[in-house]
Amino acid sequence: MIKGILGYAHYLLKETIQPGETVVDATCGNGNDTLYLSKLVGDEGSVFGFDIQKQAIENTKQRLLQHNRTNVTLIHDSHANISNHIQPTTIIGGAIFNLGYLPKSDKSIITKGESTTLAIHNILKQLKEGGLIIIVVYHGHPGGQEEKESVLHKAKSLDQKLFSVLRYDFINQKNNPPFLLAIQKNTD
Amino acid sequence: MIKGILGYAHYLLKETIQPGETVVDATCGNGNDTLYLSKLVGDEGSVFGFDIQKQAIENTKQRLLQHNRTNVTLIHDSHANISNHIQPTTIIGGAIFNLGYLPKSDKSIITKGESTTLAIHNILKQLKEGGLIIIVVYHGHPGGQEEKESVLHKAKSLDQKLFSVLRYDFINQKNNPPFLLAIQKNTD
Repeated sequence: MIKGILGYAHYLLKETIQPGETVVDATCGNGNDTLYLSKLVGDEGSVFGFDIQKQAIENTKQRLLQHNRTNVTLIHDSHANISNHIQPTTIIGGAIFNLGYLPKSDKSIITKGESTTLAIHNILKQLKEGGLIIIVVYHGHPGGQEEKESVLHKAKSLDQKLFSVLRYDFINQKNNPPFLLAIQKNTD
Repeated sequence: MIKGILGYAHYLLKETIQPGETVVDATCGNGNDTLYLSKLVGDEGSVFGFDIQKQAIENTKQRLLQHNRTNVTLIHDSHANISNHIQPTTIIGGAIFNLGYLPKSDKSIITKGESTTLAIHNILKQLKEGGLIIIVVYHGHPGGQEEKESVLHKAKSLDQKLFSVLRYDFINQKNNPPFLLAIQKNTD
């Protein structure tokens, strides 16, 4: 069976992230991906989790506590400021973004094209060869279309010698379902 | 690493086709996929291979002979006429199309939207639940754009309750590289 968007996102992360690595959840939300990454890298690895909403950081903290995960640093700041929180010499093993708004929360607080593309740009500089940035693009909400265009523009402009950009998209579904972008740093 | 278009096509076929099944190579070309399918279904299974070009049928026949594969029926006819060659009661385990022209051959002899979409329509009627039609969409050649639009229109119009249609596409590459469509018949 073909994997759904979220299943394929986790599959790709699992395929490319190794235990002990440093990885990024750029949008903690309710902590699902943060928890997944925390287990993938194991106790020797570490996760940096970002969210602009205090509620998301709090939800994620509780989620991690329930599972006794202690290898995550939660950062209440925009993922655009990643360079303020992760050493520039740190190699990043992989990263995930879920664009849009925090589920069951204020839909006016959303990720935006400018900060999302800046965060992608900053993570790519530190991404390991063969590593992936996964972006789950929700775009049905107000503001979603603009961010989608902005992120697609950034993704399409990446040099194909250096990066492979996959769009994984179910094209016969109604109501603007999310699609996935996977940006891979090519190996030499 | 993210799989390329052809690697992902074979991966999906392998994931969904079982030994003993009946499968279709709708465009034999030089026989690469025919051979792959022949091995996947094993000696108890069977492959129906179609091509409108005599040269393609001949190339594929030689390819299969080299590998001692005897479970393939080669048919020198358009895949649009599939109903003339496969019993309507036969369940099809999976199928693959490579659109465009025969490599190293006359580029004016190409698959076309009307016959391709008709063939897809006919195969879907006999496809097993959970089964896939894989379509590798080459579209850089003269006539390719029209066929691409026609096939995308057909694919997008499939009822999402009955089918899932995935587009798998590297979006930062120049020179109109092929992309993949995978149509899955949903299970109940």
